[in-house]
Amino acid sequence: MSNSAPIGVFDSGIGGLTVVSELMRLMPGEDIVYLGDTARVPYGVRSPDTVRRYAAEGASFLRDRGIKFLVVACNTVSAVGLDEVARHCDVPLVGVIEPGARAAVAASKAGHVGVIGTEATITSRAYVKAINDIDSSVKVHGNACPLFVPLAEEGWTEGEVPRLAAERYLEGLKAHGIDVLVLGCTHYPLLRPMLALVMGKDTSIIDSASETAREVRDTLEKDGLANEAEQGRASFFVTDSPEKFQSVGERFLKHNIKDINKVVLKEVC
Amino acid sequence: MSNSAPIGVFDSGIGGLTVVSELMRLMPGEDIVYLGDTARVPYGVRSPDTVRRYAAEGASFLRDRGIKFLVVACNTVSAVGLDEVARHCDVPLVGVIEPGARAAVAASKAGHVGVIGTEATITSRAYVKAINDIDSSVKVHGNACPLFVPLAEEGWTEGEVPRLAAERYLEGLKAHGIDVLVLGCTHYPLLRPMLALVMGKDTSIIDSASETAREVRDTLEKDGLANEAEQGRASFFVTDSPEKFQSVGERFLKHNIKDINKVVLKEVC
Repeated sequence: MSNSAPIGVFDSGIGGLTVVSELMRLMPGEDIVYLGDTARVPYGVRSPDTVRRYAAEGASFLRDRGIKFLVVACNTVSAVGLDEVARHCDVPLVGVIEPGARAAVAASKAGHVGVIGTEATITSRAYVKAINDIDSSVKVHGNACPLFVPLAEEGWTEGEVPRLAAERYLEGLKAHGIDVLVLGCTHYPLLRPMLALVMGKDTSIIDSASETAREVRDTLEKDGLANEAEQGRASFFVTDSPEKFQSVGERFLKHNIKDINKVVLKEVC
Repeated sequence: MSNSAPIGVFDSGIGGLTVVSELMRLMPGEDIVYLGDTARVPYGVRSPDTVRRYAAEGASFLRDRGIKFLVVACNTVSAVGLDEVARHCDVPLVGVIEPGARAAVAASKAGHVGVIGTEATITSRAYVKAINDIDSSVKVHGNACPLFVPLAEEGWTEGEVPRLAAERYLEGLKAHGIDVLVLGCTHYPLLRPMLALVMGKDTSIIDSASETAREVRDTLEKDGLANEAEQGRASFFVTDSPEKFQSVGERFLKHNIKDINKVVLKEVC
């Protein structure tokens, strides 16, 4: 595998751009190929079977782009379909859950960790398993927050509506005495300032996106696969129209987005 | 075509059940075959091209069920893909936009009508065209309300969060002096009491779902195609897992839902 091959990033839509943003910051020399399945987003409300079917198609597509490493930047796919991704894309890969789980265990003193995410991610109990594999004494409290994705996409990241929604979703977690809150969905970093406000300053907020980017950098360096080029290129593939991806995506990426291509994913078995 | 053939109802997900609920109330003898494309919902955030592709697949599926009449219960498909549906399903059909537009024109005295719906529906200007085809002097003011679908699905139909979201979305429409508000999305009837509260008693609220059901009844009676059986049967086809469809859907339908089958829609050209 060549150092100059691109890193593949797979997400259900635009949320994974928060991971790309961190990758670009930490590893400016890397080429990145991003796939967002915008014609079928969001995955977080779908059944595990359907998510796995879509994950297989996305993984096959990125495999065919000649990537050296695959980042599954979608919590839902990481939670219920990582094995299916590995089955269809034979390169080293990382999901967003393990890095987030490790950071959460390291940060918690109270031994109570809160995790918020999509319905599919929370129902899968993937964070509970990942955290308890590291430290079985940590109590993990999960809550699905279905309104956070549309709020982030709508750009309503501050003000009364998101604050009241957050208070309602986080009330139960606060009652458990958590001192760490894991953002188990790549849309949620956009709501981070507001979530920090609602949780108060004694709660550490773990952003899976940046933890994952750090792990990608460490792994590529360890394996001698890092690209030391001065400036990498990023190309983007989406399954619905590029226009909306560009306008909403630039808010997530904090960068201009060029080179967006529309593709149809092929069914695989 | 036989009177005893079922009525087909096509929607992107569960919202169309508000139309089914009205059909059952007005025409209890009819058999109904419902298709909800729950593996790819929501359509309202997608591009017209993608919606039309999905619409063709749904229409073909229902055609093959031997329906006598097709109700396109999804505003987004009605707005951007009704011709594509007709191309793939050769039975009389009705969308939800024309009936809503007719009722809006009849109800408005001020000559200012507000329409709320998904981004795709509002961007298409389908309600503007339909209303102005009837009365070109009526001013139509549209606004997309992307948070209303997740709010309805989450069951947050009253309380501060939906009220504040509604105030924010409806502020501009109120400023135009509308006296009629068209609910241009089949999820919105669940929010109707709250929307009525925010708009005040001088605004008539038009529910496309019930207007459409009335039109279906009138058309079937006129064409001699009504089914006078005592009690019709309803069967449901979905593209994702039946479990969630059942639990959320029963809130929309206000009835028990049985006989749910999972299907994969075939690509058509």
